[in-house]
Amino acid sequence: MRTVAIAGTGLIGGSFGLALRAAGFDGEIIGVSSAPALDAALRVGAIDRGAPLAEAAAEADLIFLAQPVRRIIETIAQLDPLVKPGALITDAGSTKSAILEAAKRHIRRARFIGGHPMAGSERTGAEASDANLFRARPWALMQGETDAGELTEWIKRFGADVIFLDAAEHDRMVAFTSHLPQLASTALAAVQSNDAMLFGPGLLDMTRLALSSWELWGDIVVTNREAILDALDRYTAELTRLREGIRLADEIPLKSLFQQAQQLASAIRAAPYRSYIK
Amino acid sequence: MRTVAIAGTGLIGGSFGLALRAAGFDGEIIGVSSAPALDAALRVGAIDRGAPLAEAAAEADLIFLAQPVRRIIETIAQLDPLVKPGALITDAGSTKSAILEAAKRHIRRARFIGGHPMAGSERTGAEASDANLFRARPWALMQGETDAGELTEWIKRFGADVIFLDAAEHDRMVAFTSHLPQLASTALAAVQSNDAMLFGPGLLDMTRLALSSWELWGDIVVTNREAILDALDRYTAELTRLREGIRLADEIPLKSLFQQAQQLASAIRAAPYRSYIK
Repeated sequence: MRTVAIAGTGLIGGSFGLALRAAGFDGEIIGVSSAPALDAALRVGAIDRGAPLAEAAAEADLIFLAQPVRRIIETIAQLDPLVKPGALITDAGSTKSAILEAAKRHIRRARFIGGHPMAGSERTGAEASDANLFRARPWALMQGETDAGELTEWIKRFGADVIFLDAAEHDRMVAFTSHLPQLASTALAAVQSNDAMLFGPGLLDMTRLALSSWELWGDIVVTNREAILDALDRYTAELTRLREGIRLADEIPLKSLFQQAQQLASAIRAAPYRSYIK
Repeated sequence: MRTVAIAGTGLIGGSFGLALRAAGFDGEIIGVSSAPALDAALRVGAIDRGAPLAEAAAEADLIFLAQPVRRIIETIAQLDPLVKPGALITDAGSTKSAILEAAKRHIRRARFIGGHPMAGSERTGAEASDANLFRARPWALMQGETDAGELTEWIKRFGADVIFLDAAEHDRMVAFTSHLPQLASTALAAVQSNDAMLFGPGLLDMTRLALSSWELWGDIVVTNREAILDALDRYTAELTRLREGIRLADEIPLKSLFQQAQQLASAIRAAPYRSYIK
């Protein structure tokens, strides 16, 4: 591939550009974004130039959509007539089923493979982008008819761990591992007093995600509603069990719930996803 | 003060010993703990020697109780006949009302001032102790008849911010800023799958507190029950608001809740407690 277009040159799009360069890509990287976002991406060296979508799509061998989920769906709806035949389109959207449906409906002349790099930061914009953002993080690619070929190779060169799975499985999983933590953090921040003065590092950890912007999350909760409602129900059920144990000062079930949580928190840190890497 | 006794030479007790040394204390530091805990504290240089409580209390000008809350209450119940008259006793218990009641009932020959350094780690034991653990963190001292005098000076030398408040106010506040985050993290870890493979740094942040041990938390939830139940109710009310917004795809209230949470998460980071420092 010689030319890459990045639609949405924020944190993820900018980091994709920087990671490509760091991994030795020497073709052209064209950004498609708002004027200030393009300026920022140019400043950090994530893109070579900005262009309108039609111009960038006509030249690109790979089109990377790094926008909020509903923007990705809008871009997909207009992209097919613009692309070079046989180009590869992928994305970084946080939910996958709705995006894959849109791609199935609209993309004819190009190939589409849905993706989701599990990396991020509470910081936004190309100013915060980082060639190492994807290193040692999972990067999900959706199983399907499209051969990810060269894309997979570049992602591996970024240091990320490629995991193939299907869109519904992805969406159920991230409802628990990503969307629920966001909502848990947002609700926790919402009950704090803005003159809270006694707290340790735990509260800072637990409210970091609450700094995330609604712009991104509105699209996620709308496009992964059922799985998120299920995760929220499971979560409030555990909170209710904790509440009952505390109300009754019944320490046996509380201790067992704490220990179960402790084991799961440790298991996550043992990075079991590595055994799933293909 | 020439001799300090530390009862409970784990992370907090060990860090207190190291912080005293780093701040220039050149008297003797005697540890009171289990044999392995004393060994670890000796190895890191947090204490000079171990001794039984009666022996350490008889010599100490300052007694620092760094045990779980109910162990502190047990120690207080037996301490009065053992102390040097006029000695200062303080503690690091995570809840304060129950401890202050015990001190009021039992301590006659010494002076008692309740304390709570808002510092910690998911790591435990003197092996993890750190002379800088308290730096730039709040250290609550309970307002009352006891002159904290020299103790306050040492805590300031540790780099901590001393905050005076009363026990009930402390317990209500930490129910929201410390106990609720712990329960939110524990419940979040409990709903994860132990083969979760797709997650980003957010899940690691949000489940770090879930690594904490029940040994500490059993005492906290039992001795701060009402305030914790209230905080849990406020939290589940916010989660229910989020759930309803998502179920109805009603983005206006969701956006406003996200923005409110974002503002509070930012306000916490602006460290407003500093304006309360006396």
